[in-house]
Amino acid sequence: MTSGMRKWHVSYQRTIGYEVENCPNIFHPQNTALLSVGKRENTRRFVVVDGNVEKYFSAEIRNYFNAHKVDAKIVTFRSGEENKSVDNYLWILRELDAFPINRRDEPIIAIGGGVLTDVVGFVASSYRRGVPHIKIPTTLMGYIDASVGIKTGVNFNENKNRLGSFEPPKKVFLDRVFLKTLPKRQILNGVCEILKLAIIKDPMLFELLESHGAACVDSKFQDEIGGSILNLSIEGMIEELEPNLFEENLARKVDFGHTFSYGLETHHDAQLLHGEAVLIDMIVSSILAKARNLLSCEELNRIFDLVAGLGIVIRNDLVSPELLWNSLEERTYHRNGLQRVPLPAGIGNCTFVNDINFEEIQSACKILENRMVIDDTVYEYRS
Amino acid sequence: MTSGMRKWHVSYQRTIGYEVENCPNIFHPQNTALLSVGKRENTRRFVVVDGNVEKYFSAEIRNYFNAHKVDAKIVTFRSGEENKSVDNYLWILRELDAFPINRRDEPIIAIGGGVLTDVVGFVASSYRRGVPHIKIPTTLMGYIDASVGIKTGVNFNENKNRLGSFEPPKKVFLDRVFLKTLPKRQILNGVCEILKLAIIKDPMLFELLESHGAACVDSKFQDEIGGSILNLSIEGMIEELEPNLFEENLARKVDFGHTFSYGLETHHDAQLLHGEAVLIDMIVSSILAKARNLLSCEELNRIFDLVAGLGIVIRNDLVSPELLWNSLEERTYHRNGLQRVPLPAGIGNCTFVNDINFEEIQSACKILENRMVIDDTVYEYRS
Repeated sequence: MTSGMRKWHVSYQRTIGYEVENCPNIFHPQNTALLSVGKRENTRRFVVVDGNVEKYFSAEIRNYFNAHKVDAKIVTFRSGEENKSVDNYLWILRELDAFPINRRDEPIIAIGGGVLTDVVGFVASSYRRGVPHIKIPTTLMGYIDASVGIKTGVNFNENKNRLGSFEPPKKVFLDRVFLKTLPKRQILNGVCEILKLAIIKDPMLFELLESHGAACVDSKFQDEIGGSILNLSIEGMIEELEPNLFEENLARKVDFGHTFSYGLETHHDAQLLHGEAVLIDMIVSSILAKARNLLSCEELNRIFDLVAGLGIVIRNDLVSPELLWNSLEERTYHRNGLQRVPLPAGIGNCTFVNDINFEEIQSACKILENRMVIDDTVYEYRS
Repeated sequence: MTSGMRKWHVSYQRTIGYEVENCPNIFHPQNTALLSVGKRENTRRFVVVDGNVEKYFSAEIRNYFNAHKVDAKIVTFRSGEENKSVDNYLWILRELDAFPINRRDEPIIAIGGGVLTDVVGFVASSYRRGVPHIKIPTTLMGYIDASVGIKTGVNFNENKNRLGSFEPPKKVFLDRVFLKTLPKRQILNGVCEILKLAIIKDPMLFELLESHGAACVDSKFQDEIGGSILNLSIEGMIEELEPNLFEENLARKVDFGHTFSYGLETHHDAQLLHGEAVLIDMIVSSILAKARNLLSCEELNRIFDLVAGLGIVIRNDLVSPELLWNSLEERTYHRNGLQRVPLPAGIGNCTFVNDINFEEIQSACKILENRMVIDDTVYEYRS
């Protein structure tokens, strides 16, 4: 006992663990997977679905919980980037608080796209300082990207995902059936994130997209090869996320396509889906990589050809060097003072750079513009 | 490569660590402790202070950052439970976002009482999915309770701390000088949490309070023995918090006094400070413990005598059995379906019970009421 100077060290090892699993027929009454987390008897579930899920699956979902005698409150959240707001976050919280649930064994269930699972994840992380949640992605973007990791978020102060948390789900259930109901633009939106993984870390995935990508888009990934591409994508995503789950390392390969896209989607949110903004970024980054001799002409051409083959339109009309530069500056704050921009280094590999300047971005924009107009002659322009 | 059923396990060990340290003269220009976390050159700090700190220390604080050439933005947050709101949380976030800071090496600095550090902690945990923060408690409640742990929170939907997070600070700096500026009611507010630790885990601390507590209240803990009592309290608090930092175990000794107080402070927020509500709860819990033969008459008397000796008034006029019962029910949700109420088992020890009924609470309220009126005869009433 002393009134002298004291210093106490508080330390703790926290074990985080969750599973991502294929689970077809998730709402079949005999499938108990969804109830494998939490209390089974005399129990409640707060369920958030988006408009699409409500339209196509609400009867099935209600029937499922009734069959298992679970008192479920099902709330419909209108998806879309414009609804990823603090107001909607607070609205879901009020609905939850009026229900309510036990703190530990009645997980919130989020069924929808990336916007929905991001917002509901933030709800789960902040309600009573954290209650468990389960994610069931229903868009391709959610399936291979948003649902797999632990990031949650809402837009704030006109900045995307300015508020949020790292909140591990208890489970992620993947059921391809939802993808059937998506319009083609939504499928292509997700394909852009698959393309990201292919370019910066998985040449085999790149080849698969070259040979089967267009067919998978047509089948909405319901066929055998579509399933393989999805599994490979998730595999790759988890390989990148798992050792760096809380982003202690800010140089992340999966940030490829996520430097210039930030400003693009903030300023053109009515015109660009997330994946479409990521695609523009990947193309600009690839042109920058070509100019730095990190990619060959042939490799850059393969990327352009694959994008065209998949039927994705690059909205180069929305690009300006100033917008890209401002986005880079914003992301530099986010990456703690260094650019840490991932650029492809050959197909299937990547490197990080910290010295991109405005002139380089201007040149890349000019090339992109010309490429879109005069196609093959673009490389002559540069070399 | 297969399109078959797959299951991926994601696992991660997260190491959490921070220091709580005595740091007198924290704003002396030659004291570099406050800048020991984060960038030192060409750097910025976002600082939130409360009205009291602004009044007594703002010149010193500005001078400190100027002397170290730190570009500091100092924002004043009006403290008090009524300001622990989502609106104020968002207001601080907007101020921060307009500044702004690097994501990792320009920690937010929170200087104030428990309300302020709770709100700013939640800001830090949710801005860009988490930026670092430092806490400097300026009230006794903050010094020995709120600042030591990792809980953040704001009130929501008329419920206290309904939103929040577990967010470890980078550092907690303790400087007793702030306590000098507190009114006596604020000192006693913090003493209630010291009393909590004394009753449920530290008989020596209980004895120290019996022999020196009143003098420490008078000196505002500026004397030698006051320092010892503070150090012992923090020691005890950390012993309880550290192995259970994220409350994975919901049966927590430090929840003593925090079952019935929840409803009391929610319903009487204009009349009760947190510690005052905790005190009523501790008294009710001690009467319940006596009725269950967990405390002897003598032990219960020692508690009453100590409270009286410290000059704390028990606001039994604000108590009703219904209010206490509703609070217990709410806390049962929070403790995942079990009451898990800590009751003292002798002075300096504690046990958990799950079977408190309404009649018991009614009896305890009646005893409390009579005790306050007819003092010593209360125990005859029960036995």
